[in-house]
Amino acid sequence: MAEKKMVEAITSMEDNFSQWYTDVVHKAELARHSSVRGCMYVQPYGTALWENMRNELDRRFKETGHENVMLPMFIPESLLQKEKDHVEGFAPEVAWVTHGGSEKLTERLCIRPTSEVLFCDYYAGIVQSWRDLPKLYNQWASVCRLEKTTRPFLRTLEFYWQEGHTLHETADEAKAETEQMLNVYADFAEQHLAMPVVKGRKTDKEKFAGAVATYTIEALMHDGQALQAGTSHYFGDGFARAFDITFTGRSGKVEYPHQTSWGMTTRMIGAVIMTHGDNSGLVLPPKVAPIQVVVLPIAQHKPGVIDGAQAIADSLKDVARVKVDASDNSPGWKFAQWEMKGVPLRVECGPRDLEAGTCVVVTRHNREKITVNIADLPEQIPALLQQVHDGLYQKALAHRESATHVATSMDEICSIAKTKPGFIKAMWCGDLACEMQLKEQAGITSRCIPFEQEKLADTCVCCGKPADDMVYWGRAY
Amino acid sequence: MAEKKMVEAITSMEDNFSQWYTDVVHKAELARHSSVRGCMYVQPYGTALWENMRNELDRRFKETGHENVMLPMFIPESLLQKEKDHVEGFAPEVAWVTHGGSEKLTERLCIRPTSEVLFCDYYAGIVQSWRDLPKLYNQWASVCRLEKTTRPFLRTLEFYWQEGHTLHETADEAKAETEQMLNVYADFAEQHLAMPVVKGRKTDKEKFAGAVATYTIEALMHDGQALQAGTSHYFGDGFARAFDITFTGRSGKVEYPHQTSWGMTTRMIGAVIMTHGDNSGLVLPPKVAPIQVVVLPIAQHKPGVIDGAQAIADSLKDVARVKVDASDNSPGWKFAQWEMKGVPLRVECGPRDLEAGTCVVVTRHNREKITVNIADLPEQIPALLQQVHDGLYQKALAHRESATHVATSMDEICSIAKTKPGFIKAMWCGDLACEMQLKEQAGITSRCIPFEQEKLADTCVCCGKPADDMVYWGRAY
Repeated sequence: MAEKKMVEAITSMEDNFSQWYTDVVHKAELARHSSVRGCMYVQPYGTALWENMRNELDRRFKETGHENVMLPMFIPESLLQKEKDHVEGFAPEVAWVTHGGSEKLTERLCIRPTSEVLFCDYYAGIVQSWRDLPKLYNQWASVCRLEKTTRPFLRTLEFYWQEGHTLHETADEAKAETEQMLNVYADFAEQHLAMPVVKGRKTDKEKFAGAVATYTIEALMHDGQALQAGTSHYFGDGFARAFDITFTGRSGKVEYPHQTSWGMTTRMIGAVIMTHGDNSGLVLPPKVAPIQVVVLPIAQHKPGVIDGAQAIADSLKDVARVKVDASDNSPGWKFAQWEMKGVPLRVECGPRDLEAGTCVVVTRHNREKITVNIADLPEQIPALLQQVHDGLYQKALAHRESATHVATSMDEICSIAKTKPGFIKAMWCGDLACEMQLKEQAGITSRCIPFEQEKLADTCVCCGKPADDMVYWGRAY
Repeated sequence: MAEKKMVEAITSMEDNFSQWYTDVVHKAELARHSSVRGCMYVQPYGTALWENMRNELDRRFKETGHENVMLPMFIPESLLQKEKDHVEGFAPEVAWVTHGGSEKLTERLCIRPTSEVLFCDYYAGIVQSWRDLPKLYNQWASVCRLEKTTRPFLRTLEFYWQEGHTLHETADEAKAETEQMLNVYADFAEQHLAMPVVKGRKTDKEKFAGAVATYTIEALMHDGQALQAGTSHYFGDGFARAFDITFTGRSGKVEYPHQTSWGMTTRMIGAVIMTHGDNSGLVLPPKVAPIQVVVLPIAQHKPGVIDGAQAIADSLKDVARVKVDASDNSPGWKFAQWEMKGVPLRVECGPRDLEAGTCVVVTRHNREKITVNIADLPEQIPALLQQVHDGLYQKALAHRESATHVATSMDEICSIAKTKPGFIKAMWCGDLACEMQLKEQAGITSRCIPFEQEKLADTCVCCGKPADDMVYWGRAY
């Protein structure tokens, strides 16, 4: 009955992709809607998934010399207003604290939508000499942007993220940092989430408020929509000038330092769902799966079966995150339940298997069944998890390749945008007007100017003037 | 010069304890004042210290079956008002968000001062049957209470904490949980922070808004003031009734579940400073120290010395958090610097030491110098760190014992309160009026009714009526 209910409840992604997504979020128990508009209750399974992502990113940040700090959630209005472009970008969607208890505050405080200005205020107090540079900071925090329409993980009023903020002696050093962190994000996405990404630069229209340049990794979801998976910004010395951050350089001259910031958020959970999930639910990349192996005793009422399952789990404790499901639910219910939760490997063991010293390992993503000697499991499971990771990555890459199209004329790009979901590669002259026209006529935005360029044509897909840049276009989350 | 500046800058705790505290926070680079009133910029060293505390607490929570979740930072006004005592306790000091961008919100949102009501709203959606219980949740978050006077770590508008929230089938189970988590806190304080604590129950006057009972661990600081180091609350079914959380019990009857919450905050950093620190700065308990061993090359310009220091550090990597300071600063400056930062062990190695295959290990807390064979360090250092931990605990315990006084009459308790900083043990009849009078006449509050009772007298220290409860009284942070 419970089994039936679960299987019935999930919408197929072909019928309604958006509903499929919401169903997976709820049925896999990642998050629930809350009574706070646009905010989620992130459940234990979703939180454990985020913690695994966070721990790996944190490890990579520390490995590259970054230190964590904790800055306030509030920004006084006067501080937010110091950098003109930045405040214009964020002011329309910030939450304002105006009262404490029943008293009106003397100055309004906004909830940080991002923390550049707080870091600037902090830097100003701790940097005097070139010897104090670089400052390589990161913080794990939640931030708030009052969006009109929201969807769990993809767009919420409050979201969880890390924001790196660094300050450098030279522009070159800051630019190298921006690139390094984009590579950290790309490696994390590919090696840890099995998610292929395109690395590139945002157009001026799409860049971060206050940045000189924004770099991005872009992923392609099942439905052919793009998702900005991580960004890294180079600020030049604009913020330093606005906040009067200076240092005495090597030559004794007073100089302005150069700044970066970079962030990745809980929307990566949404990206994982829409990159790997299927009509049976979530499919988790093994390296971040809260449970990597679930052991299911079959005919568990028979003597020794539950003990056998537990012994298998015990033998795997040092090589994988493993769980035994010896609950009273039927095997069919359990299969559906753990498939819904996206556990990469299922180990089935019944009385005859145990007698023969074997078990059946089933992969979540392609339901391959492999008979393995129980004694070999501790050696086999890590290799199988890596195989699953590689399989997921190749599958996602093949999907992206099949859904990446080329257009060389306005007619063609409009026609593709209407009929073929996915990335469209096309040349662009660099003119904002063309970018606007593509948005209006084809309903697509520039995703990035990829670092790996191809010369598809000599002219802009829109205006026909000479064009040097190949751009990825698409619809985006 | 720098050395002199540092040594001069710290106020001695005998001269001005409060200034000494602030000096240590700043000079040890734990945190800085921010441009956001009452909020801190927690620097890398302070953040690393908090992360070490957090990781150990998190490990203990997971070991006792708890799962992390992430709930919103906002509470809609209507939700906050559902439980009468709770809202009365917190409403005067909450921050209210009234506007999003330039638009007025239809309902005000407060920044969570604590999350009981959000957890209740969450529980109501996920609990139907006794099979769904218990729910054992925790979250790591920051919360906000608009205090008038603030001090870094001890009392800030925004502070970082964990808040455990659990829901149980029976009152007994919930009470056992409350006690279990108080023990987790006490063990953590004693075994990890080397901080002796008194376990007990708060009086009704001092308990948490909305709780049936609040349990606490109380520590004693250098200056004889008490610090509430962690609390655990039993709520009965009061919140469940207010939020209409019910479940179908084993007998088929609809019942109200029983609830707890428990929290520990960044004020533990303040407690560590004021329990172990001295006039040379911070003294960190080894188990949470971001750097446990600092290796200082002496006469480092001589050939092989820096390499030798680095080799020592490399040999310790697997047994301790170790750092080499091969900066250009003088040995004297380095001694002062790493003492200020409270690093438990300093390893000094000069050319002659290295030639002899020995080095000198100096303990931070009592400046004991021990000559150790370099080859023995990987074995010796863990043992020395444990010795330092034990030494810190014994020193703090001795201080607490010498600063714990007994009073049996009102004259006596007033006189002690005026002249002898510390805990005062005295009998209490349980009457609020006596508690108020002790506050007024002696300037002290009840810290807790300790689990370990002593019969000091038959009558209340204040009114002289029969009294059963021995209470710890004192001034508190």
